[in-house]
Amino acid sequence: MSLKIALAQLNFTVADIRANTAKIIAAVEQAKHKLADVVVFPELCVTGYPPEDLLLRADFIEQAQRAVMEIARQVHGITVVIGYPQKHGHLLYNAAVVLGDGTVVAEYHKNALPNYGVFDEHRYFNAGHQLCLFDVKGSKLALTICEDIWQAGIIARNREAGADIILALNASPFHAGKVHQREEIICGQVKESEIPLVYVNQVGGQDELIFDGASFVADSNGEVIFRAAEFEEHLGIVEFVNGRPIKTDIAPLYQPVISEYKALVLGIKDYVRKNGFQGAILGLSGGIDSALVLALAVDALGADQVEAVLMPSRYTQDMSVEDARLEAEALGVNYHALPIEPAVNAFGEMLAPLFAGSKKDTTEENIQARCRGVLLMAISNKQGKLLLTTGNKSEMSVGYATLYGDMAGGFAPLKDVYKLMVYRLSAYRNTLSPVIPERVITRAPSAELAPDQKDEDSLPPYAVLDPILMLYIEQDLSAEEILAQGYKLEDVNRAISLVDRNEYKRRQSPPGIRITPRAFGRDRRYPISSGYRGMAGFNKP
Amino acid sequence: MSLKIALAQLNFTVADIRANTAKIIAAVEQAKHKLADVVVFPELCVTGYPPEDLLLRADFIEQAQRAVMEIARQVHGITVVIGYPQKHGHLLYNAAVVLGDGTVVAEYHKNALPNYGVFDEHRYFNAGHQLCLFDVKGSKLALTICEDIWQAGIIARNREAGADIILALNASPFHAGKVHQREEIICGQVKESEIPLVYVNQVGGQDELIFDGASFVADSNGEVIFRAAEFEEHLGIVEFVNGRPIKTDIAPLYQPVISEYKALVLGIKDYVRKNGFQGAILGLSGGIDSALVLALAVDALGADQVEAVLMPSRYTQDMSVEDARLEAEALGVNYHALPIEPAVNAFGEMLAPLFAGSKKDTTEENIQARCRGVLLMAISNKQGKLLLTTGNKSEMSVGYATLYGDMAGGFAPLKDVYKLMVYRLSAYRNTLSPVIPERVITRAPSAELAPDQKDEDSLPPYAVLDPILMLYIEQDLSAEEILAQGYKLEDVNRAISLVDRNEYKRRQSPPGIRITPRAFGRDRRYPISSGYRGMAGFNKP
Repeated sequence: MSLKIALAQLNFTVADIRANTAKIIAAVEQAKHKLADVVVFPELCVTGYPPEDLLLRADFIEQAQRAVMEIARQVHGITVVIGYPQKHGHLLYNAAVVLGDGTVVAEYHKNALPNYGVFDEHRYFNAGHQLCLFDVKGSKLALTICEDIWQAGIIARNREAGADIILALNASPFHAGKVHQREEIICGQVKESEIPLVYVNQVGGQDELIFDGASFVADSNGEVIFRAAEFEEHLGIVEFVNGRPIKTDIAPLYQPVISEYKALVLGIKDYVRKNGFQGAILGLSGGIDSALVLALAVDALGADQVEAVLMPSRYTQDMSVEDARLEAEALGVNYHALPIEPAVNAFGEMLAPLFAGSKKDTTEENIQARCRGVLLMAISNKQGKLLLTTGNKSEMSVGYATLYGDMAGGFAPLKDVYKLMVYRLSAYRNTLSPVIPERVITRAPSAELAPDQKDEDSLPPYAVLDPILMLYIEQDLSAEEILAQGYKLEDVNRAISLVDRNEYKRRQSPPGIRITPRAFGRDRRYPISSGYRGMAGFNKP
Repeated sequence: MSLKIALAQLNFTVADIRANTAKIIAAVEQAKHKLADVVVFPELCVTGYPPEDLLLRADFIEQAQRAVMEIARQVHGITVVIGYPQKHGHLLYNAAVVLGDGTVVAEYHKNALPNYGVFDEHRYFNAGHQLCLFDVKGSKLALTICEDIWQAGIIARNREAGADIILALNASPFHAGKVHQREEIICGQVKESEIPLVYVNQVGGQDELIFDGASFVADSNGEVIFRAAEFEEHLGIVEFVNGRPIKTDIAPLYQPVISEYKALVLGIKDYVRKNGFQGAILGLSGGIDSALVLALAVDALGADQVEAVLMPSRYTQDMSVEDARLEAEALGVNYHALPIEPAVNAFGEMLAPLFAGSKKDTTEENIQARCRGVLLMAISNKQGKLLLTTGNKSEMSVGYATLYGDMAGGFAPLKDVYKLMVYRLSAYRNTLSPVIPERVITRAPSAELAPDQKDEDSLPPYAVLDPILMLYIEQDLSAEEILAQGYKLEDVNRAISLVDRNEYKRRQSPPGIRITPRAFGRDRRYPISSGYRGMAGFNKP
């Protein structure tokens, strides 16, 4: 007895139901061509994931329902499993349906609805409470959706109900290390219940989220016997003989730094493509952040789709301009130089009467950054190119960035990338081809907004700052717990007080690509008006 | 038998647990002084509402727990009911506790957790399943929290369990008409169960939310026999004799336009105060939006705390400058005039080589708006004053605003106020004292970014646009349903396509004050990358 199951790891666009439908129908044909008996698609593939509050619109839900009927009509000679938001009376479910011979033959409602981290499924869906088993060529297949199999019980319950194979439809977002965690937890449950599992994940970028794919099949020992490559579309086929999956292509998992790099490239590519931009522009400062964003953008879009703008000021070192030119030339990117002095001087003169007698402070630094923002946005507006910001997560955390200045732009590729990771990613990129001058990697980071400025004049060194930020932001540790790990009181309190005070800046930042377990945005929802101060000693009576 | 219950309608600051604790202790003393037997505080009063992801921090939860113990130690000779996030093992509850004689005498866990609209309580809390009744002077009091009593059943269950009086702790946010809806639904349930209810609501602004207070007591017929004034702190006392509440002060409800005006004033006042700004500034254009924001800011903060900046360009009519001056003078506000031409010209010259051969478009309009943004932010930075933006909800909906230009600022008072409502609020404000020149109200709205520009050149008239926006945004109607109400295809499709396409702008806008049932922000969570197009005909096969 042979049963061939296809895994359709595809890149859907949220709410582009017409395009998603066409993509599903094409993949069904391809699966039939490969002689598959069953083809399994990701969770909510008809709408893409996550559709967010579009799920509250009746017209959107109806459109998805019509699309399912259209797909069903075209299904013959194969069994198709797709996911979509399904309305029953007033109740909405995160559903999977089994299509065969022009009709719906079985349906399942997701049991476990995640409502933590980036997930808000209780906002939209009602939980199902039933299992769903169906027959194909004498095998009993059971349906599950994403969160279901992260919780103990449902695989075993399906096993007890007579299932031979578990099918899992997923939209499981990436963060560094997620794929290992995913396989470990799920294969552990598979092993316990001794039942093979087919895991199909969405791939692609959707605003801040990256879906990494890495769809796989585990045999009843919990061993992975098939894996689709990460970050790519793939239609894989696994053959089950007498209920046992036959080992086939196992795409290797990438090293962490490579997977992060690929996630960032995919995130830029899909944001530009799905939002219809004519390429991207960015300000190139000669510093490492913009150098990395330039390389990522070129790898995502191609050199001809990327444009760099050098905007030196009186505080910009010659070395910086030179390095920026070298970067653009190494990547074959068109660039312009627009010195900002005329605009900075104009603002200085306009404000002079009002500021007479007051000392220079960050106001004057911000004016420089905002002049750059105006120039870049003008070019972005005129050319229809997406403006990429270049700030990193360390800066976003402590507010070391200027609102409407270097924070101006439509997309922030490094928003969830700490400075130390910027160095690691840059070093990795240079192993592919030398695009970032060594000096850019080794010199001390500077915003170049004041004479001889260095980041370390205002912040703890990144080697100290970044680990403190990770403990505070991602692990929710208190200052006392961080101090217990050996960090200095001064550094811990400085870092934490800056994080606490800069929520208002983050709230107006462009979306960026999530690569850590807790990105700013939908993943960390803090009040702006807040009396909370995490500094050591502050909250003690 | 007499029982006096105090309702502590207070303004807490989220996460300022020390200040909230002091405020609770002071109110307990005041209630004792007024001979109250019981004093009831709002939902989660120890932390303020909503604390959002601070609830995921162990140190924050511990601090709240310590505060409750501190309050308990100080309670003698009175029964105190407060709300706070309570941890039991790994489970967090939205809890209310009864304090008496230095200790906790009863506790309740919120049964119904809202996870719609602005609420995300499933993200944080586990639901309780028990009732909680306790005795005071021979009366059985039952505890409920907010959402509990919006759902059928819990009042009746408490009645059956022997309750004489229902206590309800709330953090129920304002929108226009909410107070009527609230009293109608809750008094309806009260009437059905024939049991009096004491409703205590928080008051104050918290980022985008306004809590309006309007705490009340309903007798067992569902009639309101006490009401605290809206938008103010108040410690009310209601006496129950033999279980029946004695009619006392019933603060009248405000007309809708007045309640909206007061909500906006409170929102500005609390955002400035809770975030420690040294007053506020804004750009005054001579148009009605900035005129209204100026009046609101002065009513919130006082004229000496507000500063206006006039920034005319070559497209600004003399009349506009004159009207802006009249507005500032009528309100006694200090103002400066900073013509923007020098900066606009500088950018024009800097970009000329790059833009040679291209036509003028919105790029040049945006540069003007962004020069104003740079000036205003420089003054805000230098003086520590909050920059208020002046854009309204109609503009936010259709993207008729410039990112980093007129959208630059820390707080957007009119973000949830449609243009037609701007007119109504302005007319109302002028009934108090004449502060907005009649001409500002009657002339056609213009952004004055191009010669002879009028809003209606780019948009349907607001009398048509606003109702379409309300139907689409707040009621989730489809284009077809809106057309069925008699609007023109051209207007409907224009409005809807602009709303759909401008999510990216809204995502970077400052927070504003929610006064409708669906504000942009936590209330309407839409993807940026999205294939959804609501226009009529677009989604049909």
